[in-house]
Amino acid sequence: MSTHATSIVHEFWRLMASNDFHSVARVLAPEFVLEWPQSGERIRGAERFACMNSEYPAHGPWRFTVNRLVGGGNEVVTDVEISDGVQTARAISFFTIGDAGILRLVEFWPEPMPALANRAHLVERMP
Amino acid sequence: MSTHATSIVHEFWRLMASNDFHSVARVLAPEFVLEWPQSGERIRGAERFACMNSEYPAHGPWRFTVNRLVGGGNEVVTDVEISDGVQTARAISFFTIGDAGILRLVEFWPEPMPALANRAHLVERMP
Repeated sequence: MSTHATSIVHEFWRLMASNDFHSVARVLAPEFVLEWPQSGERIRGAERFACMNSEYPAHGPWRFTVNRLVGGGNEVVTDVEISDGVQTARAISFFTIGDAGILRLVEFWPEPMPALANRAHLVERMP
Repeated sequence: MSTHATSIVHEFWRLMASNDFHSVARVLAPEFVLEWPQSGERIRGAERFACMNSEYPAHGPWRFTVNRLVGGGNEVVTDVEISDGVQTARAISFFTIGDAGILRLVEFWPEPMPALANRAHLVERMP
Protein backbone atom coordinates (compact mmCIF):
# COMPACT_ATOMS: atom_id res chain seq x y z
CA MET A 1 0.00 0.00 0.00
CA SER A 2 2.66 2.51 0.96
CA THR A 3 5.47 0.88 -1.00
CA HIS A 4 5.40 3.49 -3.76
CA ALA A 5 5.48 6.38 -1.30
CA THR A 6 8.19 4.96 0.97
CA SER A 7 10.41 3.99 -1.99
CA ILE A 8 10.19 7.56 -3.33
CA VAL A 9 11.25 8.95 0.04
CA HIS A 10 14.15 6.50 0.31
CA GLU A 11 15.22 7.69 -3.14
CA PHE A 12 14.86 11.34 -2.06
CA TRP A 13 17.37 10.83 0.76
CA ARG A 14 19.68 8.76 -1.47
CA LEU A 15 19.79 11.60 -4.01
CA MET A 16 20.28 14.20 -1.24
CA ALA A 17 23.27 12.15 -0.05
CA SER A 18 24.87 12.50 -3.50
CA ASN A 19 25.14 16.25 -2.75
CA ASP A 20 24.03 16.81 -6.37
CA PHE A 21 20.90 18.63 -5.27
CA HIS A 22 19.66 19.19 -8.82
CA SER A 23 19.35 15.40 -9.17
CA VAL A 24 16.64 15.41 -6.49
CA ALA A 25 14.26 16.84 -9.11
CA ARG A 26 13.78 13.24 -10.31
CA VAL A 27 11.50 12.51 -7.34
CA LEU A 28 9.78 15.92 -7.08
CA ALA A 29 6.42 16.62 -8.71
CA PRO A 30 6.18 19.76 -10.91
CA GLU A 31 4.11 21.50 -8.20
CA PHE A 32 6.57 20.59 -5.40
CA VAL A 33 6.43 22.88 -2.36
CA LEU A 34 8.64 22.86 0.74
CA GLU A 35 7.39 24.51 3.92
CA TRP A 36 9.26 25.33 7.14
CA PRO A 37 6.55 26.27 9.66
CA GLN A 38 9.09 27.41 12.28
CA SER A 39 10.33 30.28 10.10
CA GLY A 40 7.27 30.72 7.88
CA GLU A 41 9.35 30.05 4.75
CA ARG A 42 8.02 28.35 1.62
CA ILE A 43 10.09 27.27 -1.40
CA ARG A 44 8.36 26.36 -4.66
CA GLY A 45 9.76 24.03 -7.30
CA ALA A 46 12.75 21.76 -7.80
CA GLU A 47 15.02 24.50 -9.15
CA ARG A 48 14.75 26.81 -6.12
CA PHE A 49 15.00 23.81 -3.80
CA ALA A 50 18.27 22.75 -5.49
CA CYS A 51 19.67 26.31 -5.34
CA MET A 52 18.80 26.68 -1.67
CA ASN A 53 20.59 23.44 -0.79
CA SER A 54 23.59 24.18 -3.03
CA GLU A 55 24.01 27.72 -1.68
CA TYR A 56 23.70 26.81 2.01
CA PRO A 57 27.14 27.43 3.60
CA ALA A 58 28.85 24.06 4.21
CA HIS A 59 32.23 22.90 5.52
CA GLY A 60 32.17 19.74 3.45
CA PRO A 61 29.77 17.27 1.82
CA TRP A 62 26.48 16.82 3.65
CA ARG A 63 25.82 13.40 5.16
CA PHE A 64 22.30 12.19 5.93
CA THR A 65 21.47 9.46 8.46
CA VAL A 66 17.87 8.23 8.25
CA ASN A 67 17.00 7.25 11.84
CA ARG A 68 13.41 6.35 11.06
CA LEU A 69 10.93 6.27 8.19
CA VAL A 70 7.19 5.87 8.89
CA GLY A 71 4.80 5.54 5.94
CA GLY A 72 1.05 5.39 5.72
CA GLY A 73 -0.79 5.67 2.42
CA ASN A 74 0.50 8.70 0.51
CA GLU A 75 2.22 10.21 3.55
CA VAL A 76 5.69 9.43 4.86
CA VAL A 77 7.57 10.90 7.82
CA THR A 78 11.32 10.69 8.35
CA ASP A 79 13.69 11.52 11.23
CA VAL A 80 17.08 12.36 9.71
CA GLU A 81 20.39 13.56 11.13
CA ILE A 82 22.35 15.88 8.87
CA SER A 83 26.00 16.87 9.16
CA ASP A 84 28.76 18.45 7.10
CA GLY A 85 31.37 17.34 9.65
CA VAL A 86 31.10 20.62 11.60
CA GLN A 87 27.43 21.62 11.65
CA THR A 88 24.83 19.06 12.72
CA ALA A 89 21.05 19.26 12.59
CA ARG A 90 18.03 16.99 12.87
CA ALA A 91 15.14 17.23 10.39
CA ILE A 92 11.67 15.80 10.89
CA SER A 93 10.11 15.71 7.41
CA PHE A 94 6.47 15.10 6.45
CA PHE A 95 6.21 14.07 2.78
CA THR A 96 3.01 13.98 0.71
CA ILE A 97 3.37 11.81 -2.41
CA GLY A 98 1.39 11.98 -5.64
CA ASP A 99 1.58 10.10 -8.93
CA ALA A 100 4.28 12.44 -10.24
CA GLY A 101 6.46 12.38 -7.13
CA ILE A 102 6.75 14.44 -3.95
CA LEU A 103 4.05 17.12 -3.87
CA ARG A 104 4.71 18.67 -0.48
CA LEU A 105 7.35 18.54 2.20
CA VAL A 106 6.69 20.10 5.61
CA GLU A 107 9.88 20.10 7.62
CA PHE A 108 10.77 20.78 11.27
CA TRP A 109 14.22 21.44 12.75
CA PRO A 110 14.18 20.69 16.51
CA GLU A 111 17.21 22.09 18.36
CA PRO A 112 18.79 21.09 21.67
CA MET A 113 16.87 22.32 24.71
CA PRO A 114 17.57 22.27 28.46
CA ALA A 115 16.25 19.58 30.81
CA LEU A 116 13.98 21.36 33.32
CA ALA A 117 14.84 21.20 37.02
CA ASN A 118 11.19 21.11 38.11
CA ARG A 119 10.68 17.65 36.58
CA ALA A 120 14.07 16.17 37.44
CA HIS A 121 12.49 13.94 40.12
CA LEU A 122 10.53 12.12 37.37
CA VAL A 123 13.24 11.89 34.74
CA GLU A 124 16.37 9.94 33.94
CA ARG A 125 19.05 11.28 31.62
CA MET A 126 19.66 9.60 28.29
CA PRO A 127 23.27 8.74 27.42
CA MET B 1 -3.31 -2.80 8.85
CA SER B 2 -2.57 0.26 10.93
CA THR B 3 -6.12 0.70 12.27
CA HIS B 4 -5.24 -0.62 15.71
CA ALA B 5 -2.21 1.64 16.06
CA THR B 6 -3.85 4.80 14.74
CA SER B 7 -6.96 4.30 16.88
CA ILE B 8 -4.78 3.97 20.00
CA VAL B 9 -3.01 7.23 19.14
CA HIS B 10 -6.32 9.02 18.52
CA GLU B 11 -7.42 7.78 21.95
CA PHE B 12 -4.12 8.98 23.50
CA TRP B 13 -4.78 12.55 22.32
CA ARG B 14 -8.46 12.34 23.32
CA LEU B 15 -7.45 11.35 26.86
CA MET B 16 -4.76 14.05 26.96
CA ALA B 17 -7.45 16.59 26.03
CA SER B 18 -9.46 15.57 29.12
CA ASN B 19 -6.57 17.03 31.20
CA ASP B 20 -6.98 13.97 33.45
CA PHE B 21 -3.46 12.80 32.70
CA HIS B 22 -3.77 9.70 34.88
CA SER B 23 -6.49 8.45 32.51
CA VAL B 24 -3.89 8.22 29.71
CA ALA B 25 -2.57 5.08 31.40
CA ARG B 26 -5.39 3.20 29.64
CA VAL B 27 -3.47 3.33 26.34
CA LEU B 28 0.08 2.96 27.71
CA ALA B 29 1.83 -0.41 27.91
CA PRO B 30 3.37 -1.38 31.28
CA GLU B 31 6.87 -0.75 29.85
CA PHE B 32 5.92 2.69 28.43
CA VAL B 33 8.87 5.03 27.90
CA LEU B 34 8.85 8.67 26.76
CA GLU B 35 12.01 10.17 25.28
CA TRP B 36 12.83 13.80 24.47
CA PRO B 37 16.04 13.68 22.38
CA GLN B 38 16.46 17.46 22.44
CA SER B 39 17.00 17.55 26.22
CA GLY B 40 18.16 13.97 26.72
CA GLU B 41 15.28 13.28 29.14
CA ARG B 42 13.54 9.91 29.53
CA ILE B 43 10.41 9.24 31.59
CA ARG B 44 9.41 5.66 32.42
CA GLY B 45 5.90 4.49 33.16
CA ALA B 46 2.37 5.86 33.17
CA GLU B 47 2.57 7.20 36.74
CA ARG B 48 5.60 9.44 36.19
CA PHE B 49 4.19 10.54 32.82
CA ALA B 50 0.93 11.61 34.49
CA CYS B 51 2.79 13.44 37.27
CA MET B 52 5.01 15.29 34.81
CA ASN B 53 1.98 16.49 32.82
CA SER B 54 -0.05 17.35 35.93
CA GLU B 55 2.82 19.28 37.56
CA TYR B 56 3.79 21.28 34.45
CA PRO B 57 2.95 24.96 35.19
CA ALA B 58 -0.23 25.90 33.26
CA HIS B 59 -2.46 28.96 32.99
CA GLY B 60 -5.56 26.93 32.24
CA PRO B 61 -6.62 23.59 30.74
CA TRP B 62 -4.40 22.30 27.96
CA ARG B 63 -5.94 22.10 24.48
CA PHE B 64 -4.53 19.79 21.81
CA THR B 65 -5.05 20.27 18.07
CA VAL B 66 -4.01 17.25 15.98
CA ASN B 67 -2.82 18.76 12.67
CA ARG B 68 -1.78 15.46 11.17
CA LEU B 69 -1.58 11.76 12.00
CA VAL B 70 0.50 9.42 9.82
CA GLY B 71 0.42 5.69 10.56
CA GLY B 72 2.31 2.77 9.13
CA GLY B 73 2.24 -0.69 10.75
CA ASN B 74 2.99 -0.35 14.47
CA GLU B 75 4.34 3.19 14.15
CA VAL B 76 2.34 6.42 14.17
CA VAL B 77 3.53 10.03 13.94
CA THR B 78 1.49 13.07 14.95
CA ASP B 79 1.90 16.83 14.56
CA VAL B 80 0.02 18.49 17.42
CA GLU B 81 -0.39 22.08 18.60
CA ILE B 82 -0.70 22.51 22.34
CA SER B 83 -1.92 25.56 24.24
CA ASP B 84 -3.12 26.55 27.70
CA GLY B 85 -4.39 29.89 26.34
CA VAL B 86 -1.09 31.64 27.13
CA GLN B 87 1.71 29.23 26.29
CA THR B 88 1.73 27.49 22.90
CA ALA B 89 3.95 24.69 21.62
CA ARG B 90 4.11 22.20 18.78
CA ALA B 91 4.92 18.54 19.40
CA ILE B 92 6.02 16.03 16.77
CA SER B 93 5.45 12.60 18.36
CA PHE B 94 6.68 9.20 17.14
CA PHE B 95 4.61 6.40 18.75
CA THR B 96 5.53 2.71 18.77
CA ILE B 97 2.51 0.50 19.50
CA GLY B 98 2.46 -3.03 20.92
CA ASP B 99 -0.32 -5.44 21.90
CA ALA B 100 -0.65 -3.82 25.34
CA GLY B 101 -0.66 -0.22 24.12
CA ILE B 102 1.93 2.47 23.54
CA LEU B 103 5.42 1.12 24.19
CA ARG B 104 7.52 4.14 23.27
CA LEU B 105 6.99 7.80 22.48
CA VAL B 106 9.86 9.86 21.02
CA GLU B 107 8.86 13.51 20.98
CA PHE B 108 10.30 16.66 19.42
CA TRP B 109 9.42 20.28 20.25
CA PRO B 110 10.39 22.54 17.32
CA GLU B 111 10.44 26.24 18.23
CA PRO B 112 10.12 29.34 16.06
CA MET B 113 13.30 30.20 14.13
CA PRO B 114 14.34 33.15 11.95
CA ALA B 115 14.04 33.18 8.16
CA LEU B 116 17.60 33.52 6.80
CA ALA B 117 18.46 36.54 4.65
CA ASN B 118 20.87 34.57 2.43
CA ARG B 119 18.05 32.48 0.98
CA ALA B 120 15.39 35.22 0.79
CA HIS B 121 15.71 35.33 -3.02
CA LEU B 122 14.42 31.73 -3.21
CA VAL B 123 11.67 31.94 -0.59
CA GLU B 124 8.19 33.28 -0.12
CA ARG B 125 6.76 34.02 3.32
CA MET B 126 3.86 31.94 4.62
CA PRO B 127 0.86 33.81 6.02
